This record gives sequence, C-alpha cells and structure tokens, in this order.
Amino acid sequence: MNTCDSPMIDAATRRGFLRALTALAGAAALPPVHAAEAATAEDAAAAIMKTGSEVILIVLYPGFTAMDAMGPEYMLSCMAGAKVRFIAATRDPVKTESGFLVTPHLTFAECPPKPTLVLVPGGAGGTLQALGDATLLTFLRTVAADAARMGSVCTGSLLLGAAGLLDGYEATSHWQTIDLLALTGAKPSRKRVVFDRDRVTGAGVTAGLDLGLALVREYRGATYAQGVQLLGEYDPRPDFPAEGNPATANPVMVKLLNDMHQPFIAQMGDAVRQARDATP
Amino acid sequence: MNTCDSPMIDAATRRGFLRALTALAGAAALPPVHAAEAATAEDAAAAIMKTGSEVILIVLYPGFTAMDAMGPEYMLSCMAGAKVRFIAATRDPVKTESGFLVTPHLTFAECPPKPTLVLVPGGAGGTLQALGDATLLTFLRTVAADAARMGSVCTGSLLLGAAGLLDGYEATSHWQTIDLLALTGAKPSRKRVVFDRDRVTGAGVTAGLDLGLALVREYRGATYAQGVQLLGEYDPRPDFPAEGNPATANPVMVKLLNDMHQPFIAQMGDAVRQARDATP
Repeated sequence: MNTCDSPMIDAATRRGFLRALTALAGAAALPPVHAAEAATAEDAAAAIMKTGSEVILIVLYPGFTAMDAMGPEYMLSCMAGAKVRFIAATRDPVKTESGFLVTPHLTFAECPPKPTLVLVPGGAGGTLQALGDATLLTFLRTVAADAARMGSVCTGSLLLGAAGLLDGYEATSHWQTIDLLALTGAKPSRKRVVFDRDRVTGAGVTAGLDLGLALVREYRGATYAQGVQLLGEYDPRPDFPAEGNPATANPVMVKLLNDMHQPFIAQMGDAVRQARDATP
Repeated sequence: MNTCDSPMIDAATRRGFLRALTALAGAAALPPVHAAEAATAEDAAAAIMKTGSEVILIVLYPGFTAMDAMGPEYMLSCMAGAKVRFIAATRDPVKTESGFLVTPHLTFAECPPKPTLVLVPGGAGGTLQALGDATLLTFLRTVAADAARMGSVCTGSLLLGAAGLLDGYEATSHWQTIDLLALTGAKPSRKRVVFDRDRVTGAGVTAGLDLGLALVREYRGATYAQGVQLLGEYDPRPDFPAEGNPATANPVMVKLLNDMHQPFIAQMGDAVRQARDATP
C-alpha cells in the first residue's frame, strides 16, 4: 500500500480525515513519546497532509537491477503530489537484469524541465554496457545541468561518475565497486547513503530503500517520512543481521564473492576509465 | 547486481571461479568466525555454487504494489537456475499502484505445471478490486491445487484468504489488515514472515525482502542465502529504527494512519466477506 494514487488518499478521504482530526485535536494532546517527532495528532496530521510537486526521474537502461529502482520508487511515490517517472532512451519496454520488462513513462527527449531529482539504478552486465552508451551518458550530463539533484543506487554511481558528475563529490556504490569511484574523481565513501551538495548516492541494491526514505525526509520532513515508513512497514528483519555488510559478514563469503567477481569488476574499471577519457 | 542471468555467474566465470577455489582450498582453512555458516572457502563455495530449478510465479493484477513483488523477485531471482516469472490474466502490461507498467511473462492459461511457489503481492485500491475478480480468485484456487507452496506479501494474503486458501493457516498481512484475515478462516499473526506448512505470508510491503530471503534460505540453505544477502547489500538502515512497526512507532502516527484508512479497511473487509461467501 502507498499513500499516492490510491483511494486512501483521494480528496474525499482527505476531507473526511481532516474532519476527524479537527474533533481529535479538541481532545487532549497525546504525550510526546518520540522526541524528534510530531507530538500531537494535530502536528502529525499537518505534517502528513503535506503535498508537493517534486518531479523525480528514474533512468532505465537495459539490464538495470529492478530492485535498485523500485526501492526509491516505492518511498518517493508515497509523496502525495510528487511525480515519479521512469525515463529511457525510447518508450520501448526495458528489460531488467533478471529479465522482465518495465515500460518507461518518458523518453530522454521528453525530459521535463528542472527535475527535482534524477536517479540512476545500477546493475551488473547491463551497467557495463551502459558505461559505453554515449546517448545515456550525454543525457545524464545534459539533465544534470538542469536538475536540482542527481542520484544513484548501487553501481549507478559509476554511470554518474563516468558522465563526469561526481568529480570532487563524496559518493558511494555497491561495496564491490566503491574503489572504482576514485577513477571518476569522486571521494569513495562506505556509508549506506551519502548526501553531498546536489548529489545523493546509495550503496548496493537494497540501500535504495534507505536512500528513498532519506529523500522523503529531506523533501517532506521527518514526520512525513515516518508515516511513509510505517505505511510501508519498513521494519526490516533479515534472517542474518550481520551478513548484508562486508564489514560484518562472514569473511569467507566476502572473499568468495570478491574472487568470483574480480574479473567483472576489472571490466567495470576499464569501462569507467574509457568513458572518463571520452568525456568532453 | 544479482547472481542470476548476469555475466558474473555465467559458465566461464563459474569455471574460472572453481579453479581459483581449488587453489584456495589448498591453503589453510579460514577460521569459523560465524558459527552457523560455512567455515571454509570450500564449504562456502560448494554452498554458493548450488543451482536449482525452482519455478516461482508472481501474480500481477492491476494496482498491485510494485515493491511487494520486487522484494521477493530480487531475492528469489538471485537463485541460479530458478525461474521467476510474472503471471497475469493476459500478456498486457499491468499497471502498478503507483502507475507504471510491468509486462507479465505468462498468462494464467500458460501456467507451468507444479510450480514451486506462487506469490501474490498486495496493494490498496487494486487489491480491493481484485477481491471481486473471479478470474483471479479461480486461478489462485486452481494453481494452489498444483503448487508446492502459495505465498503472499502485504494485503496479498487477503486474496489468498478470499480464495479459501488460508483456512486454518497461521498467516500475516499489512499491519492495518491483519485482523481481516480472521474473516478468511486464517489465524492472524503479527510476525513479519509466517511459514505454515505449504503457505508463506509476509507483512506489509518491504517485508517482501525478508520473506524472499527466508525463502532463499529454505530452497538453497543458509550459506547461499547469506551470499545473496551480501550481494544485495541487505544491511538495512532506516533513518528511524522504530517507526516501521506499529508496536514501536510513534502512537500518534499509528492512530493517524488508522483513522485515515478506517473507511478503506472497512471496504476491504466487506470485499473479503463477499468473496468468501462466493467461494465454492
């Protein structure tokens, strides 16, 4: 369930809800149990009824990892009034890394002016190909000059970097490709979500959820973000609490994945170097 | 990045990787730092090189919440050899709750025999409509007789229940609709992921990632699941650790969302009752 484009948040619901709140606000305010958050129903309601007009573009290319895009898409599309749109070279459905088709809303040529945020998902072989895709990199450079913020999830940061958009920025990537960011002039970071001026980058795959929620907080405030988090029941409980982070995971597994992907990571490095050399 | 359908896990990589491991296994075994996990590189490699032939179907219907489907899709499609396919009434692209299009791989009529798992995502208005969709509910009943396991994320459990498939089963749902499960004969649970015999149900939206990972563990073992978790960098760090669970969230927000959605939840209850009354 989300709060946007659903019958739950339509005008009638909002009106009925506001009436209910007016009555509720007449009663005693609830105690401020969560220090940083809305203490009263009135405060919370005022915060969560906020609307906006953010224009958020998520860039699709063949072989993108769906989860990299869908985590932020979920969180950001919960912002009532925001437009979250998929954009690609053409309107043809784009095949994800795991092989299903997602239809873009817009082509690069149809890019709306002054987007609030342009987000680039990562991938494996698809991202390697995309590093050599001049149309894609040119689009990223062009839109970056007009967008309020550019962002990425996972290896998507290598595409931003290859387009020359991370020079001097602190940024992150999938844990196996963080070091490659240095090739783009970025300052590699091992944080899960990195905000640096007009850039935001997330770590691997599932970090897109944390990045999305952090952006909702940025755009709509903490109380709104908390409402989105509760509605999306984002109370993650991985079976193995330590295994999702190379710093705490079984080192045997870390080494295994590094050995397994070493040739691929070397290819990614070469592609980043080539793209940077070709950057105007 | 995932491990399936990507150049990282193709035959050549696997062969090269196995050669590297053979050399590695000749060296001293690494210490067993994580008790429940593969202690040596050899054990870990044997576990992670496992392949399989699971057939996993994710049911799409208009208005499904994309994230409900994409969390499990990510985790499960990381199982090399597994087929994860979207199935719907027709091959036409299906519009998600937030308004983008996903193309199904298969129609209900093309359903493969004896699927390993059939998963039903939830939604809001779309799920309400789907509760009145006889074609969908009939498909769920029919495939359940042939599938090894039926599962759901979020309000998808109301569809399973409406189809008569949760009678006597412990099951969960989005926190706002858990109580409605009792209308279907299920035993409502507040756990994030509930396994009960040949059913598995997840809580709201993002619980699909935990459900997916738990299923990978079930199908391929703990070490394989840990590899998938590390590759997907599933080390979640929500900005607000307590706010994703109604038991720990700011009670002002819990009440606010409950008041806001009360009319919608009542409609869902009516639809579940009607569907159950119509169930053969």
